[in-house]
Amino acid sequence: MEVDEVVCLPRLSRVAVCGGTHGNELSGVYLVRELLKAKDIVMEEEREEPASVLMVLANPRAMQQCRRYVDTDLNRCFTHATLNGPISDSAPYEMTRSRELNAMLGPKGSPGAVDLVCDLHNTTANMGLCLIAYSDCDWICLHIFKHLQRQMPDVPMRFIHFDVSSKESYSLDSVGKHGFAMEIGPQPHGVVRSNIYTAMKDGVQHMLDWVRLFNSGTIFEAGFVDVFTIVKNIDYPRDSETHNITATIHPQLQDRDFLLLHPDDALFQTFSGETLRYKGNEPLYPFFVNECAYYEKGIALSLARKRHVVVPAIRAQTEAERRRDQQGFASEEE
Amino acid sequence: MEVDEVVCLPRLSRVAVCGGTHGNELSGVYLVRELLKAKDIVMEEEREEPASVLMVLANPRAMQQCRRYVDTDLNRCFTHATLNGPISDSAPYEMTRSRELNAMLGPKGSPGAVDLVCDLHNTTANMGLCLIAYSDCDWICLHIFKHLQRQMPDVPMRFIHFDVSSKESYSLDSVGKHGFAMEIGPQPHGVVRSNIYTAMKDGVQHMLDWVRLFNSGTIFEAGFVDVFTIVKNIDYPRDSETHNITATIHPQLQDRDFLLLHPDDALFQTFSGETLRYKGNEPLYPFFVNECAYYEKGIALSLARKRHVVVPAIRAQTEAERRRDQQGFASEEE
Repeated sequence: MEVDEVVCLPRLSRVAVCGGTHGNELSGVYLVRELLKAKDIVMEEEREEPASVLMVLANPRAMQQCRRYVDTDLNRCFTHATLNGPISDSAPYEMTRSRELNAMLGPKGSPGAVDLVCDLHNTTANMGLCLIAYSDCDWICLHIFKHLQRQMPDVPMRFIHFDVSSKESYSLDSVGKHGFAMEIGPQPHGVVRSNIYTAMKDGVQHMLDWVRLFNSGTIFEAGFVDVFTIVKNIDYPRDSETHNITATIHPQLQDRDFLLLHPDDALFQTFSGETLRYKGNEPLYPFFVNECAYYEKGIALSLARKRHVVVPAIRAQTEAERRRDQQGFASEEE
Repeated sequence: MEVDEVVCLPRLSRVAVCGGTHGNELSGVYLVRELLKAKDIVMEEEREEPASVLMVLANPRAMQQCRRYVDTDLNRCFTHATLNGPISDSAPYEMTRSRELNAMLGPKGSPGAVDLVCDLHNTTANMGLCLIAYSDCDWICLHIFKHLQRQMPDVPMRFIHFDVSSKESYSLDSVGKHGFAMEIGPQPHGVVRSNIYTAMKDGVQHMLDWVRLFNSGTIFEAGFVDVFTIVKNIDYPRDSETHNITATIHPQLQDRDFLLLHPDDALFQTFSGETLRYKGNEPLYPFFVNECAYYEKGIALSLARKRHVVVPAIRAQTEAERRRDQQGFASEEE
């Protein structure tokens, strides 16, 4: 890749903004409800939208009970295997719901899938605003991230990369051609805090602005993004018989997401007051530190390596380029 | 009451420390588990205890599911009517459990009840450490509060008074002859934070220390306590059809528990960004601001009036005084 090359990418004509994938992560629930109301108003005024934006409340049953999920974590139900395997009448609610969402926004991996999925989440960890994606070279996601960073300089912002193949990717945002989770914290589950809600509202607005600019031909300049690629998870110390945790995050680590954790730094404090230290060999970046929903998943924190990723300049294909591309595909297929 | 009079009160020979009354308020759950372990060690060493301390995990089923409750809020099941009314086999789990706890620690209002119940709670509100009681003239509770204030000067601490009769008092701590909830936050439900856990551990330790000092004859001097008496609750603005909330706590009020709220101060921010103001006539002290569990109870915040309460000097009755008192009762009964 030449640094001064401008990469041309297909327009993003269909975008989905999803909330309530976890029913107790309330910023996304209330933001999508609000956008649904606002959308009605826009439609009444017959404003022209350069892209169609679909607002989705992903897990209404869990929302109704203000719980993460009813039977099983919906945001782990979008692997190729789960979406396409056999299913019985007694399947968990979320297994059925993931297929409905895949029919609405996908099918995952097909040309019919929406162009971009933005799935809204909250965390109890002090993570600021994070975009979480399965790729470190999806220029659309990385340029949206750069745009949000520029537009919201007061909000701490990071790009997290889960290195998982498209087939094994498990979350709702993996159904789109491009997709990411917008994860904001700290906010207790079951609570909506005005500062976190406002950051999410602004983030979604700037994301949609970027899509409109992109679709209308704006060239976005090349640059760099710090990408945090997950290396591993660490569980709480647990009692071997009861499996209950025997320690919590050390006060010197609590709320210090994305501040480098060095070998021998304090990691946990046991309930009797003892300090347990990080025994890794290399300094890594902690995140999802003391996330409520991960106690049951056996994750006290995740650790990442930081890399500086070069992002090329991009612009949307013109109509002529699009047609030439399609013809090219057609001739190849012949 | 003469200010220099020393009030003599019965010794506190049986104390209960309860956790997990709400199964997702984890500081109390893990602290009681830890104290149960420590108690085993003390018993093995055959140390003499000046008071018997009973550790209770109040709602084990809710703890197991990491939820506030299974069928209904246990901490509303201790009214005289609920404990003594008819009960069917299909009663909510917590109705049955409240009777078990009343048999263990009560019966409420009877001479057989334990002398002091300390029930451990967490809140998502920024309330520091609060003792919550049904009386503003229970000298035992108020002296324990003064002791904790002295011993833990770095922890913001308040005494909250719910003005409810003994018969209508509904919480577990009302089963003891004296009792209070120890409420500490902010901590998301389903999470344990080391700073909150440690404050609770220290609070319980100092409370037990005070009981030992009291029982061994120490005179506690007279003084003052600021008591916050609840005046009313305020609900979130809600949609008249769906009953969904349409606003959250205003950023200028969030996390400002116990800072005086004046008429026309910002109270809520609607999801579309509008500010709603406090329309009361008098300045009051907000607390339980944005508590997770109170969304379903229709409480966005509570408001209190602050009063300066004179607390007399107290000491425990001597054995001779206790016997004389009992004889006095006996003659009165004759």
